[in-house]
Parts: sequence; C-alpha cells; structure tokens
Amino acid sequence: MNAEILSVGTEILLGDIVNTNAQFLAKELASIGISVFRQTVVGDNPDRLLMALEEAFSRAEIVITTGGLGPTKDDLTKEIGGKFFDKKMIEDAEAMKTLKAHFASMGRAMTENNLKQAWIPEGSVVIPNSNGTAPGSLIEENGKILIMLPGPPSEMIPMYQNFVLPFLSQKTNKKYISNTLRLCGVGESFAEDKIKDIIENQTNPTIAPYAEASELKFRITAAATDENEAKKLIKPIKDELYCRFSENIYGEDDTSLVEVVIGLLEKNGLAISVAESCTGGMIASKFVDIPNVSSIFKEGIVAYSNEAKINRLGVSESTLNEFGAVSEQTAEEMARCVAKSSKTSVSIATTGIAGPDGGTDEKPVGLVYIAVFINGNVIVKEFNFKGNRQRIRERTAINALDTLRRELLKTT
Amino acid sequence: MNAEILSVGTEILLGDIVNTNAQFLAKELASIGISVFRQTVVGDNPDRLLMALEEAFSRAEIVITTGGLGPTKDDLTKEIGGKFFDKKMIEDAEAMKTLKAHFASMGRAMTENNLKQAWIPEGSVVIPNSNGTAPGSLIEENGKILIMLPGPPSEMIPMYQNFVLPFLSQKTNKKYISNTLRLCGVGESFAEDKIKDIIENQTNPTIAPYAEASELKFRITAAATDENEAKKLIKPIKDELYCRFSENIYGEDDTSLVEVVIGLLEKNGLAISVAESCTGGMIASKFVDIPNVSSIFKEGIVAYSNEAKINRLGVSESTLNEFGAVSEQTAEEMARCVAKSSKTSVSIATTGIAGPDGGTDEKPVGLVYIAVFINGNVIVKEFNFKGNRQRIRERTAINALDTLRRELLKTT
Repeated sequence: MNAEILSVGTEILLGDIVNTNAQFLAKELASIGISVFRQTVVGDNPDRLLMALEEAFSRAEIVITTGGLGPTKDDLTKEIGGKFFDKKMIEDAEAMKTLKAHFASMGRAMTENNLKQAWIPEGSVVIPNSNGTAPGSLIEENGKILIMLPGPPSEMIPMYQNFVLPFLSQKTNKKYISNTLRLCGVGESFAEDKIKDIIENQTNPTIAPYAEASELKFRITAAATDENEAKKLIKPIKDELYCRFSENIYGEDDTSLVEVVIGLLEKNGLAISVAESCTGGMIASKFVDIPNVSSIFKEGIVAYSNEAKINRLGVSESTLNEFGAVSEQTAEEMARCVAKSSKTSVSIATTGIAGPDGGTDEKPVGLVYIAVFINGNVIVKEFNFKGNRQRIRERTAINALDTLRRELLKTT
Repeated sequence: MNAEILSVGTEILLGDIVNTNAQFLAKELASIGISVFRQTVVGDNPDRLLMALEEAFSRAEIVITTGGLGPTKDDLTKEIGGKFFDKKMIEDAEAMKTLKAHFASMGRAMTENNLKQAWIPEGSVVIPNSNGTAPGSLIEENGKILIMLPGPPSEMIPMYQNFVLPFLSQKTNKKYISNTLRLCGVGESFAEDKIKDIIENQTNPTIAPYAEASELKFRITAAATDENEAKKLIKPIKDELYCRFSENIYGEDDTSLVEVVIGLLEKNGLAISVAESCTGGMIASKFVDIPNVSSIFKEGIVAYSNEAKINRLGVSESTLNEFGAVSEQTAEEMARCVAKSSKTSVSIATTGIAGPDGGTDEKPVGLVYIAVFINGNVIVKEFNFKGNRQRIRERTAINALDTLRRELLKTT
C-alpha cells in the first residue's frame, strides 16, 4: 500500500514553522509497512490544494492531510477533500454537539466562524479531536482513502494514534521491525563500500546506512508476520555486519556512545574524570547529559589556557615549553594529572588545534591528541580532523569517547 | 519569481529526520521576495526524482534541491538534474582537486565511490562546499534555474548564504537587506504579542521572529534599491524594537551571546572562570567555541558530584548539608571559590535539577540557581525552567551568559 502526506499551511510554506507532522506520519506509516514515496506542502489556496490532492491520488491509494481544518476562512481542506470526491458539505450533529460543549466548558461564546468546523463531506467519518475544536474526517471510496487531520501536533498525534493507526493497521497484513547498529570511527562512504554486496542483493530485510555527526548507523528492517519471524530474518544480516565492523559497532538502537562508555565503567566499578583543552567542556557535557551519572563521572577540568594546564591540572611547564600544548606528552600529562587529583582510575584528556588560526606546517589545524588513562596506563592517539572549529571539536569529543570504549573493552 | 523546494532523501521520506532544510530555504526565499507555492520530498529514486523535477519546473522558474549529492550510489540528484537539462556528466577538475586534497589531508585513502562527487552536469556551475566533500551545482538555461545543494544543514546553509543568496538577490530587481536583532530572556509568543501591531501593519520593511534554542531573533528586512535606502527604512522599526525590548536585545546580526559577553570582559580587562554543575561543561564549551579566547577564559570546572564541589572547588560541606547542592548558597560559594582559585575577577556558577529524576515538591525539576561573581560581589538568580533534561541545561547555560551580560553592563 502507498500513501502520500500532504501538509496544508502557508506557515509551513513560508518557513515559519518546521513540518514535524510530516516526519511523524512518515515514521508511523513506515512502521506499519505503508510506503510513502512523496510528501508535499501547499499553502491555503483552494486551486493549488485541489491540484495537489489530484496528483497525490494519481500515485497513491491513501492521502493523509494535515492542516486547514480550523475556523478561519483560510481553512479549506475538508471542503476541497469533499470536492475531490464530489461530496456536498453537511453539518454533523455529533461534531456540533462536541463543539458547543467545548466552548461552554471554557465559558466562552462561540463566534460564527467556528460553526464550519462541524461541517464534513457527506458520507465521511468524523475523527474525534479531544485536544482542540477541529475534528478530522475520513473518506473511503473507489479504493481511495483520504484522511484529513488538523495541523497542531498536540491534536494531530493523538488522533492518529487513537483512530488512524488502528484503521490503517487493519488494512496491512505485515509488521515492519527494525534493529539499528551504531558505529563510530568509520566514514559513511567507506562503510557503504564495505557492504555494497549486501545492499545490492537485499530484499528482506533491507539495510539503510545513516550518517549522523561523527557517527554512523545501519538500520536493518524486516517485514514479517510477527516479531519472532522478524528477529530470525534480521539475525544473519546482523551477524554479518558485526563480523565486518566488529570494532566499530558500539551499540544498538537507542543506546548512545556515552551510555555505552558509562555502562562499561559501571560494570568495572571505575570512576572517570576529564581534562579538556580544545573540546572545552563538550565531553563533560556528554556525561552530564545522562541522568544519575555522578557516581561514575567525578569531575571535569576545562584547561584551555596554559596557565590552567599548569596551575589547575599540574602539567609541568617544561613539558609545555619543550613539546607544546598540543602534543602527545601534554595530552598524557593532562590525563595522568586529572586522574590523580580527582582520585579516579580512569580519565580522558584532549588537546588540539581547532582553528581557524593557530595552525602551522608542523602542527596544522585539525591536529588533535586524545589520551586515555586506565589504572595507571596511558595511551595517546593522534588524529587529523577536517572541518570548521565546531566540527573538529565535536569529532574530538566523539573519538575520545570511542577511544576509551575500545581501551576499556581490551583491558577490563 | 517563483521557486519550489525539492528535498531528496529516503531518510526524510521515512521520517528518520525532520526536514529543517525546507524551512530554512522557505524562510530565506520569502525574505528576498521569491514566492514558494510548493515544497516536495522524494526519495533517492531516479524515476520519481525526475518526475518531481519535471513537475516542479512546470510550475516554477527556480527549483532548489537538497540532498543526494554524496558518494553513495543512492546519491543521484546531480545525475537527474543533468538529465532534465540534457547534459552529460563531466569531471570538474577543480572539484576533483578539492576532493583529493580533502582525503589527503585526512590521511585516508579515497574509495572509488567518492570520485563521483567531483562529477557535475556539463556547463553547470560548481557551488563550493567548505564543510564537506560534496560540492553543489547550479544550472541556468531557458529561463529555468536549478540549484542543487547537499543535505546536511551544516554544509547546505553556508553554501546558500555564501553563494546562492547573492546569486538570487541579483535576479530579483530589488535588494533585500536584513538586520537581525538578537534577544534573550523573552518568550516567543510574548514577544510576538508585544509587536502584533507592528507585524499587522508591516509592508516594507517586514519583521520575522525566529525562536532558536533559548533565544529569539527579529529579522527586519527591507526591499530597497540600495543599502542606504534599506538602512533608512529599517531604522524607525529598529528604534521601536529597541524601545520595546531594550534590556532583552543583546546584539545584532551574527554576534552570538557569548561573543557579546567576551567583548564586555575584554573591554573591561576582566578574565573569567566557570564552575558548572547541571550545565556540566556547556558554558565552558560556548567560550571555547570562540577562537583565541584563552586570554579571557581561564578555566572551567565541571563539579557535578558533591565530592568535586568540596574537593575541587572548595565549597564547604556544611553549606551542602544545610542548604543542599541546588541552593542559592551553594551557587554563590561555587562562584566565589572558582574565581578565587582561578585568580579571575569574574566567574559564573550553575547548579540545578535537570531531571528527569531528583525533583521534590520543594525543589522541582527545572529549579536552577545561577551565580555571577564580579570583582568580589556575587548576585544569585533563581530560575524555573520547563522541558526535558537537555533543554533545561541549555536554557541554564544561555541564561547564565545573559545574567552575566546584564550585570557587566550595570557594574562596569
């Protein structure tokens, strides 16, 4: 089954609001195996709306609209939907009762323009709206299904969940179940190249790679009659991906990299401290993003200036003078010093040239050292990142966590 | 002039990401007087993409696409754009040089599939991408303009601003000149209500409010024949906004809040240190975002655990026991302690309940104390923020900077 999403509203067309409704519906429809090949946005204009509706039904059996059900004269979706199916508009007694009760309960007089919200195309089904005044409407005829929902997400989402989802689920036979693998330290194009053979021969399940900040995801989706069958279909593909990307895969589904690191620290009864120069608090902030982290994450020092590296962390002046602030030696000392003074058995330290200035031939912008300290041992890795200041810092933070994750897996 | 926005990407169609690119472009085009009557999303499918492109050009003179310029074989936008204009694909020498330099500088071998990013439709103009590997491309022929941009907003937005905007501005006869006022500490709906009279009567210039994280922007755009005329048109509106929002406006155009704070510190010869609990490094990170900040920003302490507050910062145990970690008293001590030990005359401290757990009737989730220390004096402000953990932390960081800004204006 194919569906299209048709969002109606000048405020989306002008960019005043972002179209989160389309994302919500797209995701929901994909999860029940209804394909969406197109999403469209049109303004509150009757001719252009009718044309978009005709075009959508020339390609798809189901069209879901959002927006244009309200009381103002710009709100025309139900009228145009009715026109497409050659229906006249009639007053729905139940909808009128609800509408009047709504205004009564708020102690407000109902202005004339609100009445039109209780009018629906003849023969359509009213979709109740318990969070607003504009009910939705569903027309099913000649193999075509038109579902019209209001624009505000707080009204649209519960209406979809309570009414549309059960209605559409009955229409499809299969369940679609996904399992996502999360990777770090591998580029999108490199990874895709490495699974080209699998992607080229895929039918069910399918694999979709997604790049996100400095991470990568593979989403494996199986169509099956139940969850067990889906898991069985997913397993061999998943095993193969684990085999090809063993050390890059850090977790699955909704688990973030920092959560994996926290889990490994927790399992081994280890606490961590962080000393950051170029990342300047980003790594600490990723830890503090996770609730109840204070038994694992002891503290973070943002030692951006040389003064702070010397006075706060205790890095020796001679190291800074001899090797520079951006060096293997400084990174190592930062990691040792912060672990010692924070009394943690694990630490991370970062130092690098985030740019745009400060690069030299010998030490270019993007040169970064990441040190990881675990129970007295330090390893330092050198990286050369590309991009603007923000991106170099973000990649440093992600790779610092990933370096720690790999070391924890090796040594504990 | 009419334009359409055509977003290409299966991840949008499946609802994995929300289409913020369409919103950005819609708003930008509106601001230079180009009408957009339709936005479309299609997946990475050559036939459906070509059809969507043909349809878009049947209605509009300009089509801007985002997505599908990457290295994988799913990325087909440039090929299809070329096909629409009957162009063969050729290798662009300059784009290939940039691509090779990119991989060389990262010390990574370039896989075969990356090469296609340097191929463009013959006769098209390359739009340079300084934040990624996929350049954009522009074809202008027979009164039709096709502009193809990459999907990641961090690449697409600067390419639009640096290349597409000047190009399109030349096409419209008028110059559209904007001046943005940046506000903090005022809600979007409250602010909109306060300028309803101006917005309702606006013709030229126009005002568009944008909410962004915990900030707000008013963009005033004037259509004029030259910059001077635009400035004259903008001035009375701008004066009126300064009059209505005097203390909320912290800066204009591209100046960020932290840059304004750094400017005030610099002007007064003051250095700063930061002690963060709930923000956990976010504030320090905002300072380190700005290049060459080390003479102003001395250091940051992320003291999330009570241990770190006591041992690293020197907050007294009795304060923590008597008033709790989230209290006016603890915030004040954190600010005094970090300023003293970092030898800075200014400091910021944050402590709060970011949730989702840890709230009580007396101290609910969202309760935050922000302390600002300037030359021996501390002021502490209490806030009650709404939203999830991430949002409470982000709002705390922004409001901490804004509190410091206001105090620096008062006291220096």
